[in-house]
Order: sequence, then structure tokens, then C-alpha cells
Amino acid sequence: MDERVREHAAVLVDWSARVETGDDVVVSVAEDAHELGVAVAEALGERGANVTTLYGSDEVSRAYLKGVEARVAGEGDDGDGNDDAAVDADDFDSDPAVDRAIFEAADAYLRIGGGRNTTATADIDRPTRQAYAKARKGVREARMDTDWVSTVHPTRSLAQQAGMAYEEYQEFVYEAVLRDWESLADEMARMKEILDAGEEVRIVTERDDAPDTDVTMSIAGRTAVNSAASVAYDSHNLPSGEVFTAPYDTEGEVFFDVPMTIDATRVRNVRLSFEGGEVVDFSAEAGEDALADILDTDDGARRLGELGIGMNRGIDRFTDSILFDEKMGDTVHLAVGRAYDACLPDGESGNDSAVHVDMITDVSADSRMEVDGEVIQRDGTFRWEEGFEG
Amino acid sequence: MDERVREHAAVLVDWSARVETGDDVVVSVAEDAHELGVAVAEALGERGANVTTLYGSDEVSRAYLKGVEARVAGEGDDGDGNDDAAVDADDFDSDPAVDRAIFEAADAYLRIGGGRNTTATADIDRPTRQAYAKARKGVREARMDTDWVSTVHPTRSLAQQAGMAYEEYQEFVYEAVLRDWESLADEMARMKEILDAGEEVRIVTERDDAPDTDVTMSIAGRTAVNSAASVAYDSHNLPSGEVFTAPYDTEGEVFFDVPMTIDATRVRNVRLSFEGGEVVDFSAEAGEDALADILDTDDGARRLGELGIGMNRGIDRFTDSILFDEKMGDTVHLAVGRAYDACLPDGESGNDSAVHVDMITDVSADSRMEVDGEVIQRDGTFRWEEGFEG
Repeated sequence: MDERVREHAAVLVDWSARVETGDDVVVSVAEDAHELGVAVAEALGERGANVTTLYGSDEVSRAYLKGVEARVAGEGDDGDGNDDAAVDADDFDSDPAVDRAIFEAADAYLRIGGGRNTTATADIDRPTRQAYAKARKGVREARMDTDWVSTVHPTRSLAQQAGMAYEEYQEFVYEAVLRDWESLADEMARMKEILDAGEEVRIVTERDDAPDTDVTMSIAGRTAVNSAASVAYDSHNLPSGEVFTAPYDTEGEVFFDVPMTIDATRVRNVRLSFEGGEVVDFSAEAGEDALADILDTDDGARRLGELGIGMNRGIDRFTDSILFDEKMGDTVHLAVGRAYDACLPDGESGNDSAVHVDMITDVSADSRMEVDGEVIQRDGTFRWEEGFEG
Repeated sequence: MDERVREHAAVLVDWSARVETGDDVVVSVAEDAHELGVAVAEALGERGANVTTLYGSDEVSRAYLKGVEARVAGEGDDGDGNDDAAVDADDFDSDPAVDRAIFEAADAYLRIGGGRNTTATADIDRPTRQAYAKARKGVREARMDTDWVSTVHPTRSLAQQAGMAYEEYQEFVYEAVLRDWESLADEMARMKEILDAGEEVRIVTERDDAPDTDVTMSIAGRTAVNSAASVAYDSHNLPSGEVFTAPYDTEGEVFFDVPMTIDATRVRNVRLSFEGGEVVDFSAEAGEDALADILDTDDGARRLGELGIGMNRGIDRFTDSILFDEKMGDTVHLAVGRAYDACLPDGESGNDSAVHVDMITDVSADSRMEVDGEVIQRDGTFRWEEGFEG
């Protein structure tokens, strides 16, 4: 076995999930994530934890949903005036006993992605997906109550999505995952301190070949999360490496130059104009309809839920995967939609929405970020780094 | 997808496990059993059942046990005089919360075998295996309390174990699994009726090229199981196709001409001599030591626990897999060791032992089976079949 797989397992079990002797750990293994599943099981045996392995196959999920669609279509019209051929949440058990029992009994949940086809569920109707997601709310909440961590094993399918050769992609993943997390957490603590104390953030980019960004937002009273790829930091992704908070009262123009995929639609070069905290105008060179659908979801979908600052310099390129893209060093992302509770004062509710869609902008050149008028990052260099030009 | 995979799934879900709307079904999918896992998930969606998929990987199990061995070896000697480097049952959690919760909540458990290597756990020490099995007793019992069914998806690894080409092996498996189970159950009911009413069974083989068999055993008061590959018949294997009971007071000589594997050792041409119900002499042309170990396990290991009559004529050859071999038409098997409760009168206990090892003899020619002196099967033809020569 590639030694990097064992190292990945050790980071996942020890740094990220903080597994201890006697813990009940549930590991979900995607179709082609076998090797990392094996390495994680060995690590858990060494730590004295119990392990239960789930098969996290998108093709199995698709087949199940296809079966449900066939059943519902076969039941025909019951005369109530609704479209009885469409699957709705009532067609699922909202309290599936085994799945709920698993997550209620588990201390930690390690999700290892890495299927054989990132578009394996592409032919499931959107209403079916949404109905299933709605019915699974209770299971999802039980899962989120564990010490959960999501990671991926590098597979050929993910390499293909990233537009990379397989071995090249493996190196990319391990470069992102096998960091000195302790020292990155220390560095990110500086950024958290600045954001926690700050009241207003301004981001400016001025490039010859792209529309300008000049946007300000309030962060007064909000708490930043030092997302250091560990449950000990309220961080549930491996890799991580971002500091994020929940902004409001956004004003100005933003241009997002990093391509992304919304609901299987490729979206490129998004522009958003904010007035009084809300998106009042928008455009995209590709996928504008998908963007419009997102913004029309509900009131909260037109307001920001997140400002995130990517600080993982192990990630050196965009791979069309939000797990990696939003953590890339020298990027900033804004999400329309739902804010994370961890960023809000106790008892206060932030922006609420059914969606949370991240959009990323490259700040490695011709850019600056200011907090309360002071430049914190210029052209991809932070204030505390060598070469910083205030 | 090969239509036979879907048919296999339908037999498993409907005939074998009798899944109903609202059931919570746990499916364990081995490394290369993906396709059947997909087909089963679709069938369960159609039936309105919930599905939870476990990853049943022998390589994951091996890795976990290797991790435990490393931990125990690393803990060193605590000075209590025992071999502290050896894994014992106390080194495992005897009540793993998640696994117990799964099987307590499940209505049915479908185990789909089909890994990548039938000897994947060959380098785990026997004491470690035994300690793990001992610690897992509670989980195993909870699992046996569900409507459980064990089957296999035809894989290259199983084809190799059978000494067959892959496509040839696929045909073999589907021939065995895709039977008219209803009609086989009816036929097997005749045999059950004969055994339930009978008091003594005698099996005789007389061949030029092999030692003779002439053995008698009592079955008075015992109940035969019509093992028709369905939980509705107390039968938990797919394929099945045998009628079995729990004999006692065995006398005579048996020669088992079908090769088998005991604890990874190949055993061939076993002879057992019974007096007063016990094995008093034995030999084997290969693997005699492994056989001796089995017979020395405990008192019950020298007495019979099972007489089984293979009646699945879809199985036309031996493949070194007990799931198939013991059900083959025109074979009889005897097991030393533990008897099944289903064969015993309520409250009565049968032969008890930590082992249950099946040994098979071919009765397709030069043989006869008598019940209370009446010939029931001669040269592989049953009394009720055309061509039977009483």
C-alpha cells in the first residue's frame, strides 16, 4: 500500500476525528475508496475503536431511488388531484430505523468519497432527489450530531473531473491533505483574530482582463471559524484550511472567476451586484439560468451567508470540487444562502435559506482585502508574511 | 445489467427474505458484489422497503484485526503471567454499540458474498480470529434474530476457487439460484415427510474404486428441515435445496469422496468409523491433521450433528464452496459437531459442540439410502422419480 494512504488515514482518525479508545466509528466507503477504507480500519483497530463500514455507493443510491420512482409510478393516480406519478417526501420513510440507530449510536462518522462516476445519479429527477433529502432530514441531523468528517480517496473518476492524470491527481490530493495542520491552524488563528475584532471587510480586485470587484460587508458581532480540518475546530472537511464568517449588509460588485458546477450545470464568470445586503443584479457567461434558479429559491438566497478565506497553499489549482476549491490559498469565496450557526452570537439567527452556494474568486494578484480600512492581504500575501506590501 | 442479476435480486428479496413494505433491510455488499447490491437496492425501492448497505470487505476485516494485533503487541507484558502479546476476546468490545443497534433495528439481513480473494484473511492468527468470533457472539445472535439470508454474487475470485472460467462460473451460479423454488420445496416436502416419520437411516455405497460406505443412524423423534432457500422454511442460504435432520446413535463406516477445505487446509478422501454414536477411527488421504484437530475439539465433535440430503439438481459439480456443494443433487452430507435446534423436539438439546463440519459423499451411482429398511434413493434416483429401481 502507498504509504500516503496510511498517512491520510492517520490524519483522518487522529487529527480530524480525534478518535479515542472505545469509540464507535462508522466509516462510509465509496465504490473506489477501498484502499483508504482498509487503512482507516487498521488505524481504528490500533486505536482500540470499534468500526462499522457502510458502502457509500452512488450507484446503489441511484438504483434505490429508481426503484422508488417505479413503485410510485406503478401505484397510479389516487384521484386526489396531485401528480401521483411524482415522488414526494411521503413516499419515503421519514424515520428509517436502522439508519437512525446507526448515527445515534455512533461517536464518529468518517465519510470517504471516491466513486466510479461523479455523475452516477444524473438521471434521477430533481423532485425525487429533493423529496429524499427532505425525508432524510432526521437521519442527516443525527449524523451531524456525531464527530463527522468528510474526505475523498483519489480515484480515476475524480481525476477525470479535475481534468488531471491519475497519478498527478493523487499527488494533488495528498499535497492538500498531508499538511502540518497544527501550524496551519496557528496561522489561521491570526486571521480569525482579525475577523473577530473587525467590523467591515472590503475586497477589491482590479484586473485588465476581467470586471472589477469592489465589495464591502459588515462582520460586526460575528465569530469566525478557524476551519483546520478537525472536529476540535468545528471543522468537518479533510482537507480544509479556510477561515470563514457570516457577513451581512453587503454593498458593491463581485466578479467570480473560478468556474463551478451548480446542480450539474457548469457556471462561469458570475457577476453579482449588491445593494442593501441583497443581490439586485447578476449575470453569468455560462449557466445563468441555474444561477437565477438559486437566487430565486427564497429571500435568503439573495443575501450572503458566508465569507471564506482560503488558506491551504497545498491546493494549487481548481479541480471542480468544492471540498478542495474553496480552501485553496489566495482565494476568497462568498456563499449566497444559509449562514453557519457557529459564526453567530448565541441565540441569534443569521441568514436563513434552503440553499448555500459557494462562489470563488482568485485573489493571488491585482487584489487586496481590507478589514476596517487596513490591508490584510494584498496580491495573495497576508500581512504577517514576508513580501507583504501594505 | 445482465438480466440474471436482477432475477437473482428478485429471488433473494421476495422468495428468500420475504421482504414487505416498510421493512428495514440491511444489505452487506462484498468487494466485488457491487452489481447484485445495485439490483437488490432497486428491488427494495420498488417494494417500499428501507435499505442500509454495509461494506462486507474481508480486506477491511483483516486490516482491522491486524490493527488490533499491533495494539495488543504494543501494550507489552503486564506481568500477569499470560501471553499478553496474543489477542484474546477481552481485547475487543463485546458489545459494540453500532453493530448491535443495526441488527436490533433490522427486519432482514441480506449478506451478498463475492470478494476479491477468498483467502484475504489467511494471515490472521487463529487465536485472533477465535477471540474476535467469541467477542462478536452478541452481534451474531442479534443478526441471526433477523430474517437473514446469505448468497453470493459470482466473482472472478469465486470462479478461481471453483477452478472455472468466469462466464462458466456465472452460469453455474445462476443455474443453482434461479430455480423453480416452489416446486423444489414441494419435492423436498416428500423427503421431509419420510424422514419425519422414519426411525433409522442407512446409507450404502459400493464402488470398485473406493472404500465402501455402510452406516446407520437413528432419527426417531427428530424433525427434518425442508431447506428451500427461504426464511419461510427456516432456510437461510441462497441457493439451498437440501433436507436435513439431526441423527444420533450412528454405527458403521463412511467414505467421503468430495474434497473440502477445513481451516484453509485441503482435506480429501475422509473415512470415519462409528461405534455407539462416536467416531472411533478415522483417516484422510490429505489433511488428516486438520481432521484430527476438529474431532478433538470437544466431546460433541466426534458425534454427528447433521444428516443432509442434497436435492438441488441445478448444482452439477463441486466448487469447493459449502454454500453450493452440500446442496448438490445426488449427494449426502454428514456433519460432525453441533446439531440445529430446528431439528429437535421443543426443549430437547441435541449434539452440542463448538464445531460443525460438513463432509459430503457422492451417491449418484452404486449407492442406496434406506429409511426403516425401505429404499428411498438408489443410484441418485428418488423413490418418486421415473426410473427408480427399488
